Amino acid sequence: MTKHGCEELLVEADWVQKLAKSEASGVPLRIKLGLDPTAPDIHLGHTVVLNKLRQLQDLGHQVIFLIGDFTAMIGDPSGRNTTRPPLSREQILDNAKTYHEQAIKILDGDRTEIRFNSEWCTPLGAEGLIRLASMHTVARMLERDDFTKRYRDGTPIAIHEFLYPLMQGYDSVALKSDLEIGGTDQKFNLLVGRELQKQHQMAQQCVLTMPLLVGLDGVNKMSKSKHNYVGVTEAPGEMFGKVMSISDDLMWDWYTLLSFTSPADQAALKKACAEGANPRNAKVALAQEIVARFHSQAAAEQALADFEARFKQGALPEDMPEVHLNCPEGEDDAAIAWVLKAAGLCASGSEANRNIEQGGVKVGGEKISDKGTRLAKGEHIVQVGKRRFARVHLG
Amino acid sequence: MTKHGCEELLVEADWVQKLAKSEASGVPLRIKLGLDPTAPDIHLGHTVVLNKLRQLQDLGHQVIFLIGDFTAMIGDPSGRNTTRPPLSREQILDNAKTYHEQAIKILDGDRTEIRFNSEWCTPLGAEGLIRLASMHTVARMLERDDFTKRYRDGTPIAIHEFLYPLMQGYDSVALKSDLEIGGTDQKFNLLVGRELQKQHQMAQQCVLTMPLLVGLDGVNKMSKSKHNYVGVTEAPGEMFGKVMSISDDLMWDWYTLLSFTSPADQAALKKACAEGANPRNAKVALAQEIVARFHSQAAAEQALADFEARFKQGALPEDMPEVHLNCPEGEDDAAIAWVLKAAGLCASGSEANRNIEQGGVKVGGEKISDKGTRLAKGEHIVQVGKRRFARVHLG
Repeated sequence: MTKHGCEELLVEADWVQKLAKSEASGVPLRIKLGLDPTAPDIHLGHTVVLNKLRQLQDLGHQVIFLIGDFTAMIGDPSGRNTTRPPLSREQILDNAKTYHEQAIKILDGDRTEIRFNSEWCTPLGAEGLIRLASMHTVARMLERDDFTKRYRDGTPIAIHEFLYPLMQGYDSVALKSDLEIGGTDQKFNLLVGRELQKQHQMAQQCVLTMPLLVGLDGVNKMSKSKHNYVGVTEAPGEMFGKVMSISDDLMWDWYTLLSFTSPADQAALKKACAEGANPRNAKVALAQEIVARFHSQAAAEQALADFEARFKQGALPEDMPEVHLNCPEGEDDAAIAWVLKAAGLCASGSEANRNIEQGGVKVGGEKISDKGTRLAKGEHIVQVGKRRFARVHLG
Repeated sequence: MTKHGCEELLVEADWVQKLAKSEASGVPLRIKLGLDPTAPDIHLGHTVVLNKLRQLQDLGHQVIFLIGDFTAMIGDPSGRNTTRPPLSREQILDNAKTYHEQAIKILDGDRTEIRFNSEWCTPLGAEGLIRLASMHTVARMLERDDFTKRYRDGTPIAIHEFLYPLMQGYDSVALKSDLEIGGTDQKFNLLVGRELQKQHQMAQQCVLTMPLLVGLDGVNKMSKSKHNYVGVTEAPGEMFGKVMSISDDLMWDWYTLLSFTSPADQAALKKACAEGANPRNAKVALAQEIVARFHSQAAAEQALADFEARFKQGALPEDMPEVHLNCPEGEDDAAIAWVLKAAGLCASGSEANRNIEQGGVKVGGEKISDKGTRLAKGEHIVQVGKRRFARVHLG
């Protein structure tokens, strides 16, 4: 049960033992999720993990929602990373509040404890940090994939970067966590927590990694910085439209990681599509399920109706031309005017811009009014005026 | 002048500029010597650096005698190094006091400031330490000779070992030092201080390294742990005898690093010995100079008289057998009984022990009463009873 939809559970035998002990004693297990409070919007990528946490809560366990405020207050002290500026106490508390409000759309608020790691990191002091650093070796830290690569390539690794995984691991010591959950990219860090607990003569946490959700572009991990995400607070219509824009292939991944329908039902649906059923209907069902989860069943119905009305009003043709385009070299997305010209919907960039100004351009049924709009990688239904359409596959 | 007897001065042009500025402004330069307060006895090895500091004080500069109490209170937190246990505050203050009392036998107490690095390391906190760690890279730290070797050999390097050079460097920031002095083995660490000052937008310290004094064994750097040292508080007779025990080759190194006689006088003495003068007289002069420095001229005279009386009483033969021995495999010294047997002075270990019990064994003219005595590598005049002698070269 714990493992369904997961990438890896380490160490499974330990987990079975912990579960048995918890059942016998009636004491819930403590499950840690560490969050960086720099980004205030939870998106569907985060919910893969949150859904698993909810399952565990429903089994009676305690979730600890850990806000990494200590390191966020420091930011990236090397000053090399401009995307990671230090945050003020106020910003962090604000972000944490927003995070929590969004997360309890999925989690059971009564079984969710919020903690801030400055609680134990500040009192640690320089002395405590040195002790912590003595518990891990340089060679083992350099085994982390990204460090290995950077060291080999001669890309500088500042020494404080070795301290962050240790502090994150120390959170597990302070919280006495039984399980830490995270994306597959967090596996190394989660195992540091397991290791440090051992060095502190404590029972070691298990580690559960979840696959990373691929974003709307069909290529990259869903993230704010890649602009390929669906935020859980987005309006129903926006959310619905974004889910409808993903490719059929990606849809099946999203089913596995996001849908609460049973694995058996998902397999049946996939089989039906392979045998000729229209995958659009499967996509509609997924989009509705997701909108209903974060808004309501009524909102989901309304979003579908609006979506269909827009397409009907736009007289979406049965047979649209399919256009495959690659983003300009070195870029992850493409300017709308460039797409219109490359897809043959407008003769030139200036004609494209004129059409946008006149309100004649729609993408996925939504009117585009900003000439600066860029389309992410993925599938888009692009429309100019009443009659020119294309299904653009942007790669 | 600054450079006489030194290994390296970095960066010389900076130093010349600092000297000129100090002369023009009348503001003395700040010269840092970092000391680990774990070992309470200053020996001749330390005095190589102290003598240089005294010269600089005589030129009007300020010496800062920095006690590394912060890290000493932590010890080696990995617990792997049993020779580096954490020290209590009381032990550290005691050791610091002893250090200072011994050092001002050489330094000018009025121009010596004593500081403890806990003054700025404790307030640094975990946050400050992370900032400090962000100022240096893993790759550059691994360039330090011993780290390079250990990493290559797969010998674990704990991460806190990367933090110590940074904290030592931060001492230079806190002290605004103009020059840091140390043994050649400290060069990397001293340069970290220079680097961190730059990152703190400060004038950078220069770095002066002194050659390491080889100990009585003629092989290893003089150190307490190798038992090959002459402590500056040792009794005149002991000090004199130890200096007399070194090889002629080593004596010339000691002249360069320890004697206050002029380089010209030293060259003349060496030339005379090469042309047939007895090097023993040069050794007596060095031993007397050293005893006079730490005790008095009278004590030096007395030490020489006692030393000669002992040898006369012992009827030291003109032609002693020379015996070359290697220490038992894997050891740096040898048990006295083993030496007596191996040198052919006693027929067996038990005969050797019997002779020790009866007070019939002397090494360098001193009676050996402890059967557990071990001889360090080097030259020793070993005597059993009144007539059996050997000049043992232990390698």
